[in-house]
Amino acid sequence: MNTHTENASLVLSNEHPLNDGRTAASPLVRALRGDRPDRPPVWFMRQAGRSLPEYRALRAETPMLEACLTPELAAEITLQPVRRHGVDAAVFFSDIVVPMLLAGLDVELVAGRGPVFATPVRTAADVARVRAEHPVERLRERLGPISEAVGQCIAELGGTPLIGFAGAPFTIAAYLVEGGPSRDHLRARSLMHSDPEAWRDLLAWTAELSGAFLVAQVEAGASAVQLFDSWAGSLSLADYRERVAPASRAALAPVLGSVPAIHFAVGSGHLLEEIALVGGEPGAVAVGVDWRTPLDEAIARLGNRTPVQGNIDPAFLDAPPAVLEAHVRDVIARGASAPGHVLNLGHGVPPTADPTVLTRIVELAHA
Amino acid sequence: MNTHTENASLVLSNEHPLNDGRTAASPLVRALRGDRPDRPPVWFMRQAGRSLPEYRALRAETPMLEACLTPELAAEITLQPVRRHGVDAAVFFSDIVVPMLLAGLDVELVAGRGPVFATPVRTAADVARVRAEHPVERLRERLGPISEAVGQCIAELGGTPLIGFAGAPFTIAAYLVEGGPSRDHLRARSLMHSDPEAWRDLLAWTAELSGAFLVAQVEAGASAVQLFDSWAGSLSLADYRERVAPASRAALAPVLGSVPAIHFAVGSGHLLEEIALVGGEPGAVAVGVDWRTPLDEAIARLGNRTPVQGNIDPAFLDAPPAVLEAHVRDVIARGASAPGHVLNLGHGVPPTADPTVLTRIVELAHA
Repeated sequence: MNTHTENASLVLSNEHPLNDGRTAASPLVRALRGDRPDRPPVWFMRQAGRSLPEYRALRAETPMLEACLTPELAAEITLQPVRRHGVDAAVFFSDIVVPMLLAGLDVELVAGRGPVFATPVRTAADVARVRAEHPVERLRERLGPISEAVGQCIAELGGTPLIGFAGAPFTIAAYLVEGGPSRDHLRARSLMHSDPEAWRDLLAWTAELSGAFLVAQVEAGASAVQLFDSWAGSLSLADYRERVAPASRAALAPVLGSVPAIHFAVGSGHLLEEIALVGGEPGAVAVGVDWRTPLDEAIARLGNRTPVQGNIDPAFLDAPPAVLEAHVRDVIARGASAPGHVLNLGHGVPPTADPTVLTRIVELAHA
Repeated sequence: MNTHTENASLVLSNEHPLNDGRTAASPLVRALRGDRPDRPPVWFMRQAGRSLPEYRALRAETPMLEACLTPELAAEITLQPVRRHGVDAAVFFSDIVVPMLLAGLDVELVAGRGPVFATPVRTAADVARVRAEHPVERLRERLGPISEAVGQCIAELGGTPLIGFAGAPFTIAAYLVEGGPSRDHLRARSLMHSDPEAWRDLLAWTAELSGAFLVAQVEAGASAVQLFDSWAGSLSLADYRERVAPASRAALAPVLGSVPAIHFAVGSGHLLEEIALVGGEPGAVAVGVDWRTPLDEAIARLGNRTPVQGNIDPAFLDAPPAVLEAHVRDVIARGASAPGHVLNLGHGVPPTADPTVLTRIVELAHA
């Protein structure tokens, strides 16, 4: 199960968990394949994490990235929200910089700030160096803890699918160029325009790493994947199309024939049509829609042929129950015109969210 | 000149600098009025500030908010980029929280973070308290340093117009509710949905303060104003239209009959049509367009009847001269279909910008 393929694409053996039909009939996989199960499947981005007291207890003494690389911990954290909320999918507990860390880069998650790379990548020489010193082969050799954690999840999940997870090449590149979080990713976007060739090389490499990270999760039994682009919203459509989308396509390509994929980018309503094409053709990937764009509008803009995911506004989680319920029903109603709709928040679960409210949303969706 | 009007609207005396026609024929005022001068007027958001060595020298010992309230300093900083770059407008050096500070709120600008309010405003009781303790009358009594600084600018500017400046009610409210900067303004948007009435009261009050701040600048001689909404992009169109736009309209209303206005909101391409209506009818305000939306597309979406401002991508400022020049020419060409076009960046000048590059853009626009 852990033998990695020589070329970029995933080759499944006969004993592979994907071939046993374990989750093929699950509402999540059906909806992502463009089907309409009786009720919309529901899960929450960042459901495995800080909003759960059982997570905070488990993580108390363990730094985030260490937890990601400790199979028992990562598996347990992945399973916690499934047990608690009864959601229709688990999402693998990890971080977008885990592939970078495994490939040998010096990266830390700084509390209250986010990922910080010790050595920013800002010039063509930096890009050449980082690619030479941290090739995808190095990552592949060290994916054992990831495969093991995914395997432990699968063993407990029964018919509930696990969603694999990776950061999109642009978001990872933005962190690398800036050296850490930034508001408009100006340094990254400057490199894009100042040295398009170095930029392309950088994104090709981050795409390779994210792709290998997804392959490991799918080989170990993930039933679907989500590519997460936190920062694509800072791009114009032309820049996204020409200088970013090809890399996102490359990151997803190795798993796309095997499992359904979701692409989610925050604040990128203006890129929706282009994001929907990262699977190569319309409908080949599902598109996550953030809270800003009404779901029916997104579905129509995507020609009614792309499965969508979303988009309960997290700002409603604190609202009076009747207000939240009306909003959730509105989202479900707006999702009805899609070939498939996965109910989710329009962004990650806020750390301050009351988990009982999330459980109530699942009950509502399942009612 | 400093007698403030009893009602919300601005009444200009005969001796008022607006009535002397000092800037009526300037390219900026003409473009904002929907005219096409021979060449597009150009200025830069945040031109008065950290990118200039003469600014850094002047501010060395003085905290930002103190500089804003010291007329000689605020005037000198406002004038520096006009002298250096030969831009077609000055923009008044200030900060969106200055009206809050003058109204008596405890607010600080924390380096590397932004505005931080000592007491966040999070409940209906908080809103009632803050309105009662910090009424607009208190602000009006303390606007002397602002009027004085504007007056000093005008005395030196000759035929070059000064643009007055205020923060939009939503952005200020977002800082107040969060207590400081935040990524998605979740607490503010939560209050909006949890207690719409308290939210409306909060925005009505921030609108009153920003409105009074604009009135003071216009009474002292500003020839135009810009309302700056840093955070509106986090809102859906429905929320913006119903729960935010009325307050932005109220903030601009007191000056709208007197001077042309620009409304700029970052990352809000999805709100463009609605933003264009904050003047009451299409074309009544100019709309600032950020770097994400191509200018010709924005102009067409606004029915070709709204003057626009923008939108050189700051990410091009570091690009090779030929690449930057091609980009600037492209922006000017795309702006040609607007009833008026003010050339600007699509966001504020980055602190790291090379000022000689900005001067080159002005020369290019004037060539």
